[in-house]
This record gives sequence, C-alpha cells and structure tokens, in this order.
Amino acid sequence: MARNYWLLPTDVLTRAENTPKLVGDFIESLLDPETREITALDPVDILARVREGTYTAVKVTTAFCKRAPYAHQLNNNVLEFIFEAALEQAKELDQYLEQHNETAGPLHGLPVSMKNQFHVNSVNTSMGYVGWINKERPVESLLVKELKSLGAIPIAKTTCVQTLFFGETNNNILGYTKNPFNQALSTGGSSGGEGAFQALRGSGIGFGTDIGGSVIMPSAFAGLYSLKPSHGRISYKDVANSVPGQPVIPSVIGIMAISLPSLRLMFKSLQSTKPWLDDPEVINFSSRLETEPNSIALEGSDKVSFGLYENDGMVVPHPPIQRALRIVQKALDLKGYKFVTWDPPSHREAATMHSFFLRADGNADVFEQINLSGEPFIPEIQAQFGEKPKPPALLLDFYKQYLHLKECREKYQAYWNSTATKSSTGLPVDAVILPASPHAGVIPGKYYHYLYSNFPNVLDYTTMVIPVTNANKTIDIFDKDYKPLNDVDKKNWLAYDPEKYNGAPASFQLLGRRLDEEKLISLATIIVEALEEYKKQDGWENV
Amino acid sequence: MARNYWLLPTDVLTRAENTPKLVGDFIESLLDPETREITALDPVDILARVREGTYTAVKVTTAFCKRAPYAHQLNNNVLEFIFEAALEQAKELDQYLEQHNETAGPLHGLPVSMKNQFHVNSVNTSMGYVGWINKERPVESLLVKELKSLGAIPIAKTTCVQTLFFGETNNNILGYTKNPFNQALSTGGSSGGEGAFQALRGSGIGFGTDIGGSVIMPSAFAGLYSLKPSHGRISYKDVANSVPGQPVIPSVIGIMAISLPSLRLMFKSLQSTKPWLDDPEVINFSSRLETEPNSIALEGSDKVSFGLYENDGMVVPHPPIQRALRIVQKALDLKGYKFVTWDPPSHREAATMHSFFLRADGNADVFEQINLSGEPFIPEIQAQFGEKPKPPALLLDFYKQYLHLKECREKYQAYWNSTATKSSTGLPVDAVILPASPHAGVIPGKYYHYLYSNFPNVLDYTTMVIPVTNANKTIDIFDKDYKPLNDVDKKNWLAYDPEKYNGAPASFQLLGRRLDEEKLISLATIIVEALEEYKKQDGWENV
Repeated sequence: MARNYWLLPTDVLTRAENTPKLVGDFIESLLDPETREITALDPVDILARVREGTYTAVKVTTAFCKRAPYAHQLNNNVLEFIFEAALEQAKELDQYLEQHNETAGPLHGLPVSMKNQFHVNSVNTSMGYVGWINKERPVESLLVKELKSLGAIPIAKTTCVQTLFFGETNNNILGYTKNPFNQALSTGGSSGGEGAFQALRGSGIGFGTDIGGSVIMPSAFAGLYSLKPSHGRISYKDVANSVPGQPVIPSVIGIMAISLPSLRLMFKSLQSTKPWLDDPEVINFSSRLETEPNSIALEGSDKVSFGLYENDGMVVPHPPIQRALRIVQKALDLKGYKFVTWDPPSHREAATMHSFFLRADGNADVFEQINLSGEPFIPEIQAQFGEKPKPPALLLDFYKQYLHLKECREKYQAYWNSTATKSSTGLPVDAVILPASPHAGVIPGKYYHYLYSNFPNVLDYTTMVIPVTNANKTIDIFDKDYKPLNDVDKKNWLAYDPEKYNGAPASFQLLGRRLDEEKLISLATIIVEALEEYKKQDGWENV
Repeated sequence: MARNYWLLPTDVLTRAENTPKLVGDFIESLLDPETREITALDPVDILARVREGTYTAVKVTTAFCKRAPYAHQLNNNVLEFIFEAALEQAKELDQYLEQHNETAGPLHGLPVSMKNQFHVNSVNTSMGYVGWINKERPVESLLVKELKSLGAIPIAKTTCVQTLFFGETNNNILGYTKNPFNQALSTGGSSGGEGAFQALRGSGIGFGTDIGGSVIMPSAFAGLYSLKPSHGRISYKDVANSVPGQPVIPSVIGIMAISLPSLRLMFKSLQSTKPWLDDPEVINFSSRLETEPNSIALEGSDKVSFGLYENDGMVVPHPPIQRALRIVQKALDLKGYKFVTWDPPSHREAATMHSFFLRADGNADVFEQINLSGEPFIPEIQAQFGEKPKPPALLLDFYKQYLHLKECREKYQAYWNSTATKSSTGLPVDAVILPASPHAGVIPGKYYHYLYSNFPNVLDYTTMVIPVTNANKTIDIFDKDYKPLNDVDKKNWLAYDPEKYNGAPASFQLLGRRLDEEKLISLATIIVEALEEYKKQDGWENV
C-alpha cells in the first residue's frame, strides 16, 4: 500500500482541530463505506463474520489499518503501528481457515492494540520514555503471545503517560492526547492513548495497565467498558513497567472494549490459554473455565444486591456522574434489585498506603529512565517528582506499612461482609456501584482527586467501568450554591463547567471483591441489560 | 477430673527415657482399653462413629485428653493444653447432635492441635519465646474459628523452635523435643512439637507452619502425611509469626495427619468454610469445591506421569531415603506409571533467595522478641544470629532481589513445562517425587542441608510428605566407599549411622506446582494405593 493510503489531508486535520467530537460521525465520514461498515461492528460480530467467511482476516485487518492511522492523526494516540506484520498474520489466518475449515482460535482475525508497555516482536517499546526508543527487546510479552495464539492481530501500540504516574496522557515523544469525545477535555491516563484509540475504534479491543486507575480513568472518559482484574488473572509476564520491583501493590493489565460481550469474550479467551502454566503469578482457575459461565446472571433480583456509593465523603462528583449513578439505580430498581448504602472504612487510609508503596523507592526508577535521555519531565508531573530522587523508604518501615496494608484490606473485607445484615438477600452485597472519577473526562490540569480509582488497587479488588450516558449541558447544571465538603471538593466543584463538559461520557465503576472477575462480568451483564431496557423509556436521561 | 488422671508415674517416665521408640505399643500400653481403641482409630473413623452415635464427642475428647498429656510427658511436645474448654465444646456438640439429629459440621467431635503460633481464646501464645508468655491476645486465629465452626475441638498447642528458624525443636520454655520414633534423633522443626504429638496420636489432626520446610521436615521425621499448600489456601489471618512484615516469601499453614483420608477431609472441610470471605489473602476457589473431588485419581497411568528427583546434585540422601524413593518408584512402576528424570534449574539459586528474604530485616524482629525477656538464643541458633541485629537490606536491593526471585520462579516453571517433551503422556509431569530431607529424622546437630524443603517455599509450590517405610539397619547399610560430591555431602554421609537411624520413618516429598493442592491430594491417593498394593509382595522393603 502506498503511504498516502493512510495520510489524511491537511484540511481534514485543520477541521479536526476545531471539532469538539471526533468519535462516530467525524472519523467515519472520512472512511470508505466498507471500511466504515467493518470497523463500526461490534468485535463479536466481526469475529462471527470472519468465522462464517463473510470477511477475510485480511479484509478486516486492512480496514482497521486504514481507520487506525486516521484515529491517530486526528487524536495523537499511537506510538507504534504494526501493519506489515499484522497483514502478514491475517494472510496466514486466512490460509489456516481455508485449509482447516475452522478458525485458529476464538479471536481469529480480530485486530487488537495495547498500551506501549507490551513487547511485540520487532516493535519498539518506549512506554513514553525518550530514552527507551530503539532499546533492544529480546522477548515478546506473554499476553501478546496468547493473543496471537487465539487468532488476534496486534496492529498498534498506544501512547501513555511518561512514568505512568498521572491521570492525563502526555509524553515527550508524542505530546498530549485529548479526549476524542470532547477535545476540551483530557482523555485520562495513564492508558489514555488506548482509551482514545478504542473510542475512535482504531482496533477491535485494547489493553492498558492499572496501578491507580490507569485503566479505569481513560475507560470512563472514553465511554468504554473495562475490566481491571485482581493481580493473578491476566499475565504481566515480560511486560515493561514502572518500578517493576515493588512487590506489594501490583500493577495489573486491564481490558478496554467498546462492548461488554467483546470484553467478556476477551477475558474468557485469555483464560482458555491457561496462562498459569507459563506465568507462575497467574492463578490456576481452570475450575472456573468449567463452572462459571454466567450463573449469577440467571439468578435474579432475589439473589443479587448492590452497594451504592454516591460519593466518598471527600469529593462529590460533578452533576453528569451523579446523574449517571441515578440512571443505573433507576434501571436496576425497575428490575427489582435492591441497594445497600455503602459506608466503608475511609478511603483516605487506602490513599496513604497507595502513595507510600508507589513512592517507596524515592522515585529511583523513574529518574533512572528519565536520565537515559536527559529528557525533562512533562510539565504535569514535574512538581510531583522534583529535581532528584528522594531517599528510599527503610525496609523496616516498608514491612510495617505492609502489615498496615494487610489490616486495611481485612477491615474493608470485614465491612463488605457486614452488609449481609442490611441487604435484601441476607448476604453481603455482590458488587458496589460508585463513581470512576469525580468527573466525566477532565479539564486539563483539573484532576484533583484520584481516590475513586486507586483504592481498588490497594485492596487488589476487581473493578469494571460501564458507560451510562453523556454529560448534557442542559440537564447537568452547575449549582453555584453547592456547599463544598472541603477545599479539594470546592476546587473540583468550581472546575465543573457544563459547557466544556458537554458530550463527555458519564460512566460508573462496578466494584467486586478480589478475584471476582467472572462474577463481576456476569453482574455487568445484568446491569447493561437493565440499562438498555430502561433507556427505552421517555425522559430516561433526565432523572 | 483429678490432676492425677493425667500424670504418669515416675517409673514410667524413667522407662520412657530408656526406650528408643515411644509411638505405638509403648504409649498405648499405658492407656485403658477404651482410650486406646478410640485414639488409635483413623480420624475419619472417629468422625463416623461420633456421627453414628457409637461414641459421644465427650467420650472421644476425654480419651484424647488422657492420651495427649501422656504424649507430652513422654516426649515434651506441648506448650498449652486446652482441656476444659475442649470438654465444654464437646458437651455442646453432643447436645447439638441430640437436638438436631445431625452433626454441627464435617469435623464434629474431632480433637485437633496446633503449633503454638495460633491464637485460641484465653490460651497463651508463646511461639517458643519466653517474653510472650502471658501476653494478651485479643483475637482468635481465623483457622481456629473455622475449625470450631466445623466441629473440631482444639485440645493442645504444641511446641516449636524459638524464632521458628531451625530444623530441630528447642526453646527456653520447654527444652528439646526428641523424635518419638527413635529418641536418638531430633523430631525436626520448626513445627516439631506438632509432628511428635501427631506421631503419638495426641490429637486427631494437627497444624504447623512452613516457610522453609517447617511442616515438611517434622512430618517426614514423624511418619506423617502432610500438605504444605501454596500461599492463599489456608488462612494465616491472626496467626503469630516471625518477621510478619516480610511480603515476598510467605509462611504458610500446613496440615499434619496420620492418614491421607483424614488430611484430605481436613483440607476439603477448611475450604468449605470459604475462608476467602474473611481473609482477603485467601484465593476464592469456590469453583474447585464443585469440580475437583478426585478427577485425577480416576484417570490412570496413561494420563499421569511423575518427575523423579533422586538427589539435588548437592547432597545425596542417606540409604533409608534412597530406598524409600526406590519403593515408591517400584510401586508406581507396577501400576504402569512412568517417570521423567527431574533436572531443574539449580536449587542453589533458590536457596540464596530464601536466605536473602528471610534475613532481609537483619533479624530485627527476632532480636525484638528475644529482648522482651532477655532470654538467650537456644544454642543451636546462637551462631546464626550472633550478638545483635545486622543492618536491614536496602529497599532498592530488596526490589532487585524480588525481580530475581520472579525470574527464578519463571525459569522453574518453564523447566516444568519442558518435561512435556520427555513424558509418557506428552504433557508436563503432574508432580515430582523427591526427598523431603537427606535423612530419616536427624541426629541432633547434624542437619547440614535444608535445600530439599526450602525451595518449594521460594517457588510457592504445593508439596506433600508421604511416609513409605522405616530406616532398617540391616538393609540400609553405610557405604564407606561412597565418593562424596562435596564437603557438605561428605559431612552428611559421614553422619549416617545405621544403628542410630534404625526405625526412623523414611518418607518422600511429592511436589506440585503453585496452587495444585486438590490435584496433589488426588495424586497422593494414587501413590498411597500403589504403595499399599506393592507392600503385599514379599521382600517389598528390600529393593
């Protein structure tokens, strides 16, 4: 293919700069009908059509190899494209299907993408560091191998935050990534490139990593479904990371998808590769492959109850998020589901633990990577890191904090158990509905409160993001008489601007206990069905 | 009951001192017939008889409350008896059974015991430290609560090594504990009190803890079946420990039992309490409750293969252990099972990791506990700890070593996978047969090589001990022409004395991968059945 196959003309780029919303019509109007048709499909339907022979893997891959660079040129979200290898792999898959009359795996022919922390053979892994460009990588990440073995086709590696420690996406290689739903806003971070790329449907499904909300935030801001599992479900083997030697609060890999069925299929497919055989950190849940398809989903409202956490007592979310929570509540209420008001041990303690463990090395690792090239910190995080590393924590303090962390985890678990006395089922609630962040997207520089998305990592709980609606300037009014809880809450409230936020996806977080991934996906299915039904009512948006 | 109900006359104690073997006939000759009959039963049969009403829980508990203090007076293995609460609990269980016409749980009426690290309400937890005597303990260990909820009755807490870091059992509270099979030998450590107590059938089933072989060694030396699971199966919540803040190589709780069926029942019963609900460190394997009863056991030799590791290339085990391995091999061979010679990455590296992480705090915790009372170290470990703590490891080194540990685990796992190319099944071997230690019991002061029992902790693998035979001075000959591999091997070889070791249990270790507990118990069932069948042959011992 000639290079201009991918290049957008200057006038389109100029027009894009002045268009708030790039997802949907804007990007799709640039595509030829067939590319549009293929790439707009749910990934589950793409797979079905490849399986049935309607499309070849080459055709699907070619379509995404057109849309992906458009997505990037409009939105600045990709660090590495992998088109040649992708098309080669697609050809082989087509041959395989023809020869064997069956697919090579459950993801046969599906283009996928991932944050640029994952190693793909012969492709650079910069993770947002200038000094990593063209560094040799002798290995391919186990997840990438699994994806290929399942028939998925890596086509791009997306941009992320330099150091990974920030909630907006920027680095010295590519620069800032805006929210493609609303360019006045950030797309979140640190897996923000993947979030924006998925929103623009640059590939069929994507992967990020999360140690403090880095999958949760960009998924919520980009209207995606996501799963941030507990440690030990999706292999992190041979994936680059920040502070890789920190053993207590692990970073985990999350799935980011435009639909729940595709997310579910991805998780199930990855488990079917038995990653525990190759990665000793992955838990052998072969038994769940047989027993936990969707049992929860069948049980109904007499067996399932939810916790409801409207705010954490520190920062009240903006009106669009408040409304999103009300919509979910209403939708579930109509199906008979009951709620317990969530009143857990303070998340402030979790936040203290989080900050201690993520910074215990005195930022030695971050400075080592920065110093490889001598690049400056991006301005957003300069103050956070200062001019030089701090002294690392003392090991005995580290041990003490670890014991404290275990106590926090036990207290939270005990609280969860205690909801049995309040729930309609007589059992502890099955999952908790809460904000993913205090805002729908975020105005650059105005992310003041990360606690909604980092306490799940402290607890190693499973969490999902589910999109509900979009910020609507006519419904989601700024209440100037709002009485803030404290200074941070005040800053967050004052940062709400109905005009600027208009159109941003408003999502919520569904929190499960540690290792409750299958159960949580089943519960998400209940909720999404309830939302779909509820949205058939007039005025559903306005609750 | 009067105090003399429990006290043994002086002449018996004198006779015991001069009798090599206290288990079996010696202790049983001291008991009245009914006590003997009850306490000699397999715990599974005890439970059946209580369930069917042949015995009351009070009768069973009373019998063990007689045998247990005998076991202790003969062998010096108990730090705390819990008779009054035990008999009270037994009464309540009897009432429950009468009222409800069903048992309170699967362990209804079974006396149990545990290393004195576990907290039982109102009972002292010394863990072998003088300074811990009469320390307030506001909590009961979750495991103890689970046991009680299942109907089991804690009757004693057994002695252990001061600091927990040694392979023979001694402390300044109770002194040294000899091997009740052969008093010329040590009973191992650190859970040596429990091992000896179980061998003497002081209770129905016991618990120890293991971070470097502390369940494996005393189980092997006492002819017991044991399971040392991976971290995350049996709850460690609210259990005292040495260096509790060390987050990388966790100590785990193991089951020590006189029979495989009782061990299996105990593990299954504990899982049935869903410990993951109360302890966030326990993995939610509810799916295994439904799917993994004994599926492997039914499959046969075409589906299962074993690794065989006769020695680790550093220290060759003594003749009784060599013979035990040959017996197992022969027994499985007759059933058609095939072996792959185990040739893993060197265990020396694992040993280095083990030592680094267990000592990373510079022994600060150990000195803190010792200094509570000002007691001296027991002589066996004085040299190991010196006069004062060392500087703790630096956190950045700690992180580096953790990355190295992960590499070791990955390399070992990769080796395990590679056996698929050599096995009869075309799959990786299912478990590995290897020594639990280089000797059957150990002559005090002559434990030179711990690597057989500490590498499983470094890998967080599951391992079991299975007894095979007993050292036999006429068969297990000292070969004076043996060419030692190195100095340690030479010391170990020269320490072999057929006369002194005569009668000591000779066991082996069955190693599974991380979290393979159910599978390993199933494989152990295969092996025990094969051994039973093989032992019907003439001359089975002499292979």
